[in-house]
Amino acid sequence: MKIIRRPEVMVAWSENLRRQGVTIGFVPTMGALHEGHRSLIRAGRRRSDALVVSVFVNPTQFGPTEDFARYPRVLDRDHALCRTEGVDVCFEPTVEAMYPKGYQTVVMVSEITRRWEGERRPHHFQGVATVVTKLFRIVQPHFAVFGQKDYQQVLLVRRLVQDLNLGVKIIICPTVREPDGLAMSSRNIYLSEQERTIAPLLYKSLKAGSEAIRKGVIEAALVQSTMAAVLKQEPRFTIEYLAVCDPLTLEPLTLVTSKAILLGAVRLGSVRLIDNLIVSPARNQRAKRLSSA
Amino acid sequence: MKIIRRPEVMVAWSENLRRQGVTIGFVPTMGALHEGHRSLIRAGRRRSDALVVSVFVNPTQFGPTEDFARYPRVLDRDHALCRTEGVDVCFEPTVEAMYPKGYQTVVMVSEITRRWEGERRPHHFQGVATVVTKLFRIVQPHFAVFGQKDYQQVLLVRRLVQDLNLGVKIIICPTVREPDGLAMSSRNIYLSEQERTIAPLLYKSLKAGSEAIRKGVIEAALVQSTMAAVLKQEPRFTIEYLAVCDPLTLEPLTLVTSKAILLGAVRLGSVRLIDNLIVSPARNQRAKRLSSA
Repeated sequence: MKIIRRPEVMVAWSENLRRQGVTIGFVPTMGALHEGHRSLIRAGRRRSDALVVSVFVNPTQFGPTEDFARYPRVLDRDHALCRTEGVDVCFEPTVEAMYPKGYQTVVMVSEITRRWEGERRPHHFQGVATVVTKLFRIVQPHFAVFGQKDYQQVLLVRRLVQDLNLGVKIIICPTVREPDGLAMSSRNIYLSEQERTIAPLLYKSLKAGSEAIRKGVIEAALVQSTMAAVLKQEPRFTIEYLAVCDPLTLEPLTLVTSKAILLGAVRLGSVRLIDNLIVSPARNQRAKRLSSA
Repeated sequence: MKIIRRPEVMVAWSENLRRQGVTIGFVPTMGALHEGHRSLIRAGRRRSDALVVSVFVNPTQFGPTEDFARYPRVLDRDHALCRTEGVDVCFEPTVEAMYPKGYQTVVMVSEITRRWEGERRPHHFQGVATVVTKLFRIVQPHFAVFGQKDYQQVLLVRRLVQDLNLGVKIIICPTVREPDGLAMSSRNIYLSEQERTIAPLLYKSLKAGSEAIRKGVIEAALVQSTMAAVLKQEPRFTIEYLAVCDPLTLEPLTLVTSKAILLGAVRLGSVRLIDNLIVSPARNQRAKRLSSA
């Protein structure tokens, strides 16, 4: 496996392969790779001739009070995982190479980033959109793989690619979970032992919402209170949002009559956890909707 | 000459040529082509195997009170000029193809756009940065040619390319002028016969500033009043700005001790004219500066 640090070397590598008709796959990460990343890498590996994984903890997507400085950095372990999975290039630029002196450009995607994470983390998605645009131009992949765990980010990237004609196909992989349901995240290591025990309640709360919908509940408010009830069992959770949304626009729904996404964000001690679940309403609800149309 | 209207067709054309190692040159325009454009096209033609000219009156770079609706559109004449100059492709997308329903992404370059045109035309440069990013991804040129007439725009594009790793070389061509010195512009056709007679005073004012500097004036304020004096001969001019700036940052200078740029923007009736001139100080001023360093 090649380790490339300089953007111009990465560009040259990719341009050379593209001229040869090689299909380049790309998995952008912030490192501290876990089983979720492994599944993205495997999905990328299956579809590509050459696979690039980037490891870059992007400062511009962290807020001033967030965890940029303490974000886990374990390059050696990341390299080992990438080697095991047959990655061709690990691209790990420095912050200075990505944002040199005089840097002054940002990319902003508006509507899709307005709510939920965008509301709680100002500038976060601006940082994401900018670094993704840059990485796509440096790595020049034919496709890139993202995890459903960061659902709003996935929608943002799809929109960005379409709007700026970036020409990269976006592939989404299902969230990988611990046996107890907790969504894999590099930030899970921040959880204390006690917090770790109760962390799966976020997923359980989404499951409860999903079950309600499957059983025929169509009022979003009722679904929401079902989800909240699960989390309120445990006073250490602070709910940031629990939402029932349109899966394409992320606008909140009043009635769940077709496919929806349940979004959740909570604080648990010093850690912020997010998760989501796509859900389809009970068959008879869909039937009702069709007959009234 | 091929006329391409659909972005996806343009992308396919360019990708195919790039795989063959063909060098693609690009001249982005808003049409109503004049001798200034012709010089850009010729510069592009000399350096490229395949040359693309785009004709797209980009709505997002016009302010609500500006001339988007009445901007001259003369496609047949533009095609004739392109054919004469040996252009390979004229790319002329519709507004709907560039900004389809649901479009929501912008690109912003901050410091370089803060003053001068950016201050007088809010959102103008955001529109320019966004459409240039899109056009570069659609046309995928190796280099693109811009005119020095829109000097701030040129600096913006250079910064944008560097910041977002767009991988397009930017070539700047000198401003082409009418025999009486008026800088060529598609908007000159808005000038009444009377206005047209006095319009060259903007260039004369820049020339006067430049002469003063060459003769040893180093106080920017003095250069500025010299320029203003020329325009004040003619009360029909409204001066928007006359500035003596650093040619890389566009920050105003106090003393002209090395290369500078003179920027001018005026209103003449309903028309807004801009122009600029790069100038080097008198030899003895440069010597003074060196000896005091």
